[in-house]
Amino acid sequence: MATMQEVADRAGVSIATVSFLLNDTKPVAAATRARIEQAMADLGYRRNVVARALASRRTHIIAMAYPALEHKFGTSTAEFFTSAAEAAREDDYHLVLWPVGNDGVELRELLGQGLVDGVVLMEVQLDDARVGVLRETGTPFAMIGRTTELEGLTHVDIDFDTTVADAVAHLYDLGHRQLVLVSGDLDDPRFHAYGPWVRIGDAYRRIAAEHRLEIVVVECSDTTRAGHEAAAQIVRDHPGTTAVLVMNEFAALGVTAGLQRLGRDVPGDLSVLPLLMVPETAAMSNPELTIMRTPGPELGRLGTQSLIRHLEGAAPLPPQLVPAKLVPGESVGRPRSASAEGIGGR
Amino acid sequence: MATMQEVADRAGVSIATVSFLLNDTKPVAAATRARIEQAMADLGYRRNVVARALASRRTHIIAMAYPALEHKFGTSTAEFFTSAAEAAREDDYHLVLWPVGNDGVELRELLGQGLVDGVVLMEVQLDDARVGVLRETGTPFAMIGRTTELEGLTHVDIDFDTTVADAVAHLYDLGHRQLVLVSGDLDDPRFHAYGPWVRIGDAYRRIAAEHRLEIVVVECSDTTRAGHEAAAQIVRDHPGTTAVLVMNEFAALGVTAGLQRLGRDVPGDLSVLPLLMVPETAAMSNPELTIMRTPGPELGRLGTQSLIRHLEGAAPLPPQLVPAKLVPGESVGRPRSASAEGIGGR
Repeated sequence: MATMQEVADRAGVSIATVSFLLNDTKPVAAATRARIEQAMADLGYRRNVVARALASRRTHIIAMAYPALEHKFGTSTAEFFTSAAEAAREDDYHLVLWPVGNDGVELRELLGQGLVDGVVLMEVQLDDARVGVLRETGTPFAMIGRTTELEGLTHVDIDFDTTVADAVAHLYDLGHRQLVLVSGDLDDPRFHAYGPWVRIGDAYRRIAAEHRLEIVVVECSDTTRAGHEAAAQIVRDHPGTTAVLVMNEFAALGVTAGLQRLGRDVPGDLSVLPLLMVPETAAMSNPELTIMRTPGPELGRLGTQSLIRHLEGAAPLPPQLVPAKLVPGESVGRPRSASAEGIGGR
Repeated sequence: MATMQEVADRAGVSIATVSFLLNDTKPVAAATRARIEQAMADLGYRRNVVARALASRRTHIIAMAYPALEHKFGTSTAEFFTSAAEAAREDDYHLVLWPVGNDGVELRELLGQGLVDGVVLMEVQLDDARVGVLRETGTPFAMIGRTTELEGLTHVDIDFDTTVADAVAHLYDLGHRQLVLVSGDLDDPRFHAYGPWVRIGDAYRRIAAEHRLEIVVVECSDTTRAGHEAAAQIVRDHPGTTAVLVMNEFAALGVTAGLQRLGRDVPGDLSVLPLLMVPETAAMSNPELTIMRTPGPELGRLGTQSLIRHLEGAAPLPPQLVPAKLVPGESVGRPRSASAEGIGGR
């Protein structure tokens, strides 16, 4: 039997257009429809009855697609997942986790089985192959995260601009004038187009410039060992630094321990403020870290509810951006220079 | 068209019995069969062709059942999950995660949809309701963990006896004679029959007695804050302690930080040795922890391979127990008493 791709090729349209017609998910122009139907007739294409029934049945199961073999599945991710699963359960859905890669290959295989009503996408890349797969297969989906092109896409995300602005303002108000951002390692091919890292980096550069601060960014992959190295680099190359913002969780623990190993007191000599962390991780550090708290519980829930509203034909939730909020710990204080010179309030 | 429930009601049998007959999953007595067939004829019930195709098809998908809303999904769990997903992928299966509770209710709902070929059970209780559900529905499964009753069940697990014996021997050989075990909190209803905690506790009591050590066990839930409290309790109630074994990851980080906050040097004053931890977590602590390394990568893989062999009719793998192995860090040393008195090896 002919495949959908062969039908698309013969009709001179994309496979997505064939899918729109077959699944009735988007209007298709009459002339295009005629070409596709002719191609189907020429090729003897018949939609498989089981596949069609599968495609139309409702399972009340939704999948969270998370590239667990490429991205670390940490405590923070677990919060998104469990809050999403709870939100699904409250609305009488089951949420399952699909550890499929960002390339969309496995996602396509699983979707072909008609197992789920819809998908929540996590770890969204700026240009994400999975979005194309979901559109072609006519699968309803919501993103926790954002592609660059957002037209018509249901999404919720962290408000990175507000998060970074609040973090910088907090340090600035305490008197800090020499900051370093320890960002993700964008040279890592798994992360070169990873939205959060790009957006935090961009926001930091803009906001630091607004405060007329020198912009220093140290790239660092998300491990405690890489954090130790970042700490050494800061002490060696930027000795006047009074506060460090850190994008990633494990890196932040490593930066803190690394500064201490080099004889620096946190927060006496340097303040450390992670930009995305959960309290459980903050409590692992000694001193306990002051953090911008990742809004995982809110976003897991909102992303899932957005999808379910879509599945049930309810009015869509508007896209929502939720900032990380400051949760005080013991790793941020006034800089020594401020104490001596009287800069900054408290 | 009549539903299966209506057929069951008319025949005066349970819906399960109708299902056994229709899916040929269990023998049904001739008289009962006749009643059901009469009810189907009376009601004009026809088996849905799609449902039949679904029931018999192989999906090449296996589910890992993990009670993520009850048990913390930490770095250690992520290792089991990702290694299982990798092993499945190598054998051309997809592994997905089902965050279903230990009571088996949601598991039964998901299994009813015919979505998976088999199930890997995680966080196995000594008497686990999910085993009954899997048997009733005729679903192939393998356990990572062990119920008390193991007859005919495919399983792999941590070798708790060897793990605890090796850990105690290591401390004993260094000269430690006053140990404390910080165990899980078995009063927590989510964990009262949780195999690993029960087995580690039992193994510790036996092995400590063999070494003629005083048996001190402090119960502690798996959070850093509870670990801080356990540290305070050890310092207050057991001041002669020279080494602490800790069952749970977050508790171990908390115990270490808690001892330090109380002015105790680790390992100068007290050694800390977690019994189940991954290196990434060990590196979060300062000093980096010496650990018994959880064999998650091995067990995730072995559990999945055991299930796949079962699905493919290959000879079963024998049950396998894998011990956690000592990975040196900086949190275990000789006790001061040994240094002074010359007990123990180097």
